[in-house]
Amino acid sequence: MPELWVRTNARGPRAAPVTPASPGIAIAPVDDEGIGESIRRGGGRVVALHEADAIVWIDPRSPEGLRDVLARSPARWVQLPFAGIEEFFAAGVVDKERTWTCAKGVYGPATAEHALTLILAAARGLNRHVRATRWHDEGLSAPERRLADATVLIVGTGGIGSALADMLAPLQARVIGVNRSGKPLLNADRTAPINELSSLLPDADFVVLAAPLTAETSGLFDDLMLRRMRSDAWLINVARGGLVITEALVSALEERRIGGAALDVTDPEPLPVGHPLWALDNVIVTPHVANTWAMGLRSLGEMVQDNVARFASGRELKGVVDPDAGY
Amino acid sequence: MPELWVRTNARGPRAAPVTPASPGIAIAPVDDEGIGESIRRGGGRVVALHEADAIVWIDPRSPEGLRDVLARSPARWVQLPFAGIEEFFAAGVVDKERTWTCAKGVYGPATAEHALTLILAAARGLNRHVRATRWHDEGLSAPERRLADATVLIVGTGGIGSALADMLAPLQARVIGVNRSGKPLLNADRTAPINELSSLLPDADFVVLAAPLTAETSGLFDDLMLRRMRSDAWLINVARGGLVITEALVSALEERRIGGAALDVTDPEPLPVGHPLWALDNVIVTPHVANTWAMGLRSLGEMVQDNVARFASGRELKGVVDPDAGY
Repeated sequence: MPELWVRTNARGPRAAPVTPASPGIAIAPVDDEGIGESIRRGGGRVVALHEADAIVWIDPRSPEGLRDVLARSPARWVQLPFAGIEEFFAAGVVDKERTWTCAKGVYGPATAEHALTLILAAARGLNRHVRATRWHDEGLSAPERRLADATVLIVGTGGIGSALADMLAPLQARVIGVNRSGKPLLNADRTAPINELSSLLPDADFVVLAAPLTAETSGLFDDLMLRRMRSDAWLINVARGGLVITEALVSALEERRIGGAALDVTDPEPLPVGHPLWALDNVIVTPHVANTWAMGLRSLGEMVQDNVARFASGRELKGVVDPDAGY
Repeated sequence: MPELWVRTNARGPRAAPVTPASPGIAIAPVDDEGIGESIRRGGGRVVALHEADAIVWIDPRSPEGLRDVLARSPARWVQLPFAGIEEFFAAGVVDKERTWTCAKGVYGPATAEHALTLILAAARGLNRHVRATRWHDEGLSAPERRLADATVLIVGTGGIGSALADMLAPLQARVIGVNRSGKPLLNADRTAPINELSSLLPDADFVVLAAPLTAETSGLFDDLMLRRMRSDAWLINVARGGLVITEALVSALEERRIGGAALDVTDPEPLPVGHPLWALDNVIVTPHVANTWAMGLRSLGEMVQDNVARFASGRELKGVVDPDAGY
């Protein structure tokens, strides 16, 4: 049974003896019992904003709210939730005076597991089978594939990509990683720099987008890139909708130029009612649930505990944001 | 790109020098180029039925056809396709005069991969998401689960069960195996004898049926057993429809007493048009595609090559059927 943190306004019991070295950490914009417990386990005290050394910000979608909170707090360190923090950068909230950490890497396994789910769902034709209302005895024409016969191209080899490569290993898929440097991805058969992406696409049965959304990756999968994919290949996006030019993808899907698309993120997001992607039988859309609030709070809690302990003892924090790189 | 064997009536080129030790193997009911190649690679010759030392029977569903063929052949060994050969036993075709082998274990990885697909699809709510035509921003109420928080109970620890346990390892699921002997399943946290099944069911998030259909397992999941499952637990069947009492399952699903069912096999099979299972949103049906004809012929070819080589040199064959056990 998954353990779900319950959001509540009631504060949990304080840790009894507060040492002078125990940093004061505020939770905003709303209190959270589980995160409070993680702060205490890491050796911190949960305090109000005006006396906080640090803030754990647990709302992934309101940079403006964070701006207001920062104006009322002397905090030197801000822990952001989730890994994709481009909205906070776009709002100009991420400054260079404070240390910023985000949960990059922490959610890798949860998101990778969702990517694996979508790869397998595509390989096994669940887009058709789940919608079917009668038995299809397809015999020789069945398009179901085993991953042992497939090549999975993973674009982005951070926390998600590396966790996915680990999960693909026992399925004996051929795995190719693509990243900025070409630095080898563990458990991949090959890792290539991003400038080879276009030439690698014709080899791929499944193309998994697991890269951050940056100026470099925005709109990466445009019409030209999609035309490099095979007619039986699936595009899997568990990263950010903005990595793909949606109109180009819809055309590729409608014209059956690619096998299909499985999207946990879309552009626009949420995907509006009546959008062409809802009607296509070669599409699976999941509503940004690769790493749900419940899964995320749990993983964030583990990270907060670790980082509070590091902050208390002056060690380097995990997940430090590079304001210049944008993630 | 998966390599698909093409069924054809044309025989492939013969291996040039035929040694006296090279056994004559017939392929029936129709010739198959890929299996012929496997026979030659194993050191055998592809011959007609009347001169065959052995028969590779590649039709999984016609025991009566095999009976006719046996009457016309002196074959001492019969290689059956696929692992579930209960129809051949029911028809009384499997005698004790010949050696019978079937492909038990060989298809484990393909079928286990389909089981993994269905587990993940259930964990991630694809039964709802694939059918959805609008975005569901479910927030805290989202029922998506990570396998790291889940217990998977695998009923049957043969080729499918053991391959599945391997695939679940990097997902950090808690795995419990159930078999006749309680003999430990590698990569399982625990293995229990079948008489403990009922008491283990309340622990399981996912119950995977991967056991052969025998007198002992027929109707194993009846109303009583289904009532031991949790209200959020899924039943996954990749083995045989007859392991489950369909009427009891439909009631459990309609009354939401279990989380759902993902079925690659059904009873009756094919599932008729209009059957209640087609209408339930907590059900995923796939039309017996865990190990498709294309996947199977490829795996069978590898087994045939190995067994022909063993037959030619008088070694013990792999996958020998126990006529008394029924598989």
